[in-house]
Amino acid sequence: MNRQEKKSILANINNSLQTSYADGFGVNDSASDSLPRRSEVVAVAEKLLELIFPGFERAGTYPSSAVLLADCLRELSDQISRAVRRVKGEECENCDSGCSMCCDESSALEMLRKLPEIREIMKSDVKAAYNGDPAAKNFDEIILSYPGIKAIAIQRIAHELYLLDVPLIPRMMTEYAHSVTGIDIHPGATIGKGVFIDHGTGVVIGETAVIGDNVRIYQGVTLGAANFPKNACGMLIKGAKRHPTVGNNVTIYSGASVLGDITIGDNSVIGGNVWLTESLPSGTKITALPPEHRKKMLNSAGDIK
Amino acid sequence: MNRQEKKSILANINNSLQTSYADGFGVNDSASDSLPRRSEVVAVAEKLLELIFPGFERAGTYPSSAVLLADCLRELSDQISRAVRRVKGEECENCDSGCSMCCDESSALEMLRKLPEIREIMKSDVKAAYNGDPAAKNFDEIILSYPGIKAIAIQRIAHELYLLDVPLIPRMMTEYAHSVTGIDIHPGATIGKGVFIDHGTGVVIGETAVIGDNVRIYQGVTLGAANFPKNACGMLIKGAKRHPTVGNNVTIYSGASVLGDITIGDNSVIGGNVWLTESLPSGTKITALPPEHRKKMLNSAGDIK
Amino acid sequence: MNRQEKKSILANINNSLQTSYADGFGVNDSASDSLPRRSEVVAVAEKLLELIFPGFERAGTYPSSAVLLADCLRELSDQISRAVRRVKGEECENCDSGCSMCCDESSALEMLRKLPEIREIMKSDVKAAYNGDPAAKNFDEIILSYPGIKAIAIQRIAHELYLLDVPLIPRMMTEYAHSVTGIDIHPGATIGKGVFIDHGTGVVIGETAVIGDNVRIYQGVTLGAANFPKNACGMLIKGAKRHPTVGNNVTIYSGASVLGDITIGDNSVIGGNVWLTESLPSGTKITALPPEHRKKMLNSAGDIK
Repeated sequence: MNRQEKKSILANINNSLQTSYADGFGVNDSASDSLPRRSEVVAVAEKLLELIFPGFERAGTYPSSAVLLADCLRELSDQISRAVRRVKGEECENCDSGCSMCCDESSALEMLRKLPEIREIMKSDVKAAYNGDPAAKNFDEIILSYPGIKAIAIQRIAHELYLLDVPLIPRMMTEYAHSVTGIDIHPGATIGKGVFIDHGTGVVIGETAVIGDNVRIYQGVTLGAANFPKNACGMLIKGAKRHPTVGNNVTIYSGASVLGDITIGDNSVIGGNVWLTESLPSGTKITALPPEHRKKMLNSAGDIK
Repeated sequence: MNRQEKKSILANINNSLQTSYADGFGVNDSASDSLPRRSEVVAVAEKLLELIFPGFERAGTYPSSAVLLADCLRELSDQISRAVRRVKGEECENCDSGCSMCCDESSALEMLRKLPEIREIMKSDVKAAYNGDPAAKNFDEIILSYPGIKAIAIQRIAHELYLLDVPLIPRMMTEYAHSVTGIDIHPGATIGKGVFIDHGTGVVIGETAVIGDNVRIYQGVTLGAANFPKNACGMLIKGAKRHPTVGNNVTIYSGASVLGDITIGDNSVIGGNVWLTESLPSGTKITALPPEHRKKMLNSAGDIK
Repeated sequence: MNRQEKKSILANINNSLQTSYADGFGVNDSASDSLPRRSEVVAVAEKLLELIFPGFERAGTYPSSAVLLADCLRELSDQISRAVRRVKGEECENCDSGCSMCCDESSALEMLRKLPEIREIMKSDVKAAYNGDPAAKNFDEIILSYPGIKAIAIQRIAHELYLLDVPLIPRMMTEYAHSVTGIDIHPGATIGKGVFIDHGTGVVIGETAVIGDNVRIYQGVTLGAANFPKNACGMLIKGAKRHPTVGNNVTIYSGASVLGDITIGDNSVIGGNVWLTESLPSGTKITALPPEHRKKMLNSAGDIK
């Protein structure tokens, strides 16, 4: 294949791509300048974590909290502005001047205002991890290495942006957390104090889930929807309450599925692999009867004797 | 310990390592220049995603699609060339001139040719996510944050390279996707249009699985092998069809295991935690009877009353 | 909102954060210079992997093993020193001179000394993967892409540091592996030769687990604790043996939970989704009876006929 043939094939591929871009479906070339940037959303999330736990990521290499706050305001406002322009259009709904930047900056500032409170709540999460895990050696180890801490901290940040009706950014943040922790908590979920997610891989917590204080959750737990209500046209109804409400002091062991808009009463314990679609009164312990097993002896070749 | 002692210990360690490298087992120092580079395989995969969804990763920071295509051709050819030289040796099987670069570039070009088609198919995947998830707010959110989109897009790219018999690179790409999404799809799997993997952590889809159109799969689902056929010497037979074939319009809920070379008929629904090793006719709904539970009331100390 | 108002709000947020930092809980600003840095712990872990499998990450871009060893000694000593100063205080327990750096360097050197042995053991792990997975094409593919190899290699490194009583760093390393592989192995676990973890997402192996030679483990397997012993004050007892001991030549299929300080005899097979809290004699095959299923036929609208 000579250079000319190669050029011609590449040009053909590019033409086909341009045609495919032209319908404006999903993200595409021409619109890309108004899109939030995944890498920068991650960068600002990391900086917000650093404000909550200074030294969390790169001890001694970040500037002072005052400088970091100003950086976060500027960078978060930029990403929010991109998201708002992309999803809601250029016009600002909230003021007559037709600006949008001022509102985007307001949202960012509102989020930053919550940081001290989030830090206080996260202290209770760290203590819950220490009190709940025999392998935890000290608070520093929990902060510097436990994935549950990172996932919950990012969700608490994203949840504030979700409440401020910021599009795209909250989910981009929680999916970043999902990517690095295996813990998938929708930004819409409401999470109390002193919550500990141990190991965490495979945990899924849906948009309308509500979790009380001092709740402990293990790997593979789903707080999900039992079914998806549809409208008369057969289209999904978006946003309806469809996930569990979990009371205070509840423990949910690994692999349990808790599904639908049900209520788990305070002080309950849900055993490993339980499949639960009905509400539980306070103080209930529910365990799955272990599956029946068949045991056989093998001979030395690994076959059944 | 003085500087001299330290030097001497390090030299001893290095000698032992060199001895261990010398058997040529696995990757090792002397051969390293011909190995594909993980970081560059990831970089080219990200660029291919950017061609499918411009703005996907770093909106506004990539060059035009024409320049990006030329970059991808050069970089992908380089990695393919390293993989081919490493696994198949220097000689080119396909032409008399004994070159190899020309063939490696042809494989890369063949892959790039598929990009417009992959983009069209991915549009159907995005629509399937929107129609299947009550929490999905708009197409942009799905493209910019849903792990299923990233995992499937990378697998579709890797699958083309797999069909072109390129060694190492396809699996390196899908394991990159596995790493950032928790979704493990072998590059050999064949995947139809309008496929939606929700949440996705823990999903495993094997090399010889075939998935139809409009299939929805939830977290923790395995499409795996039921047993591993061995030859007369007791060695595994590589490559035989050993994973399920899933029809069109099938939904598989979280935690289900579908194992072996079985067929799931069109329009079937497989419930959460089902353990399935037999084929299902079209239009079957199969659910696991929920495990029996034992409920007890706890007193305030958390003990059984 | 004018510039002055914005400044004032940011100053208020910063004051609240400073107040929250002042209690010294967890990591915080003033102490950050003595904390290990997550990004540098990851960087040194990657370099140690490169010494075990040269070419593993960025073939041809790393210096010679002698230079890399010297880099690792310096960087690992620095992180260990930070961790020791943070957790155990400035004073060195092991020598009269009150230094600490010498001991930190000794620990790093002890770890490096184990590298040739770890490489030899990892060869057996790679062979186990090749012999255990019909999809594995060659050793290179396993080394360059299988997450189980990366997770086990990092755990073997971290385990040496754990045995040397280094704080923080071992868990930071294994949680990095957890993050990129979904495989969560505590640095305290003892792992034999020829161990293969396939797919791996959701695997959890606890601090006091012991795993023999030639063991194969699939995705979603937990080797966990059955209950958490507490002292008279109701506080968790840290460090007690509470996880399984698994013999040689054992296979544990996906989703199985093996819980408590029990012993699984040599040559046993534990089926998918088994829930096991009692010891098994050698040569036992235990399978969960598949859950009972309910099958129904659907009409074309997807409803039950």
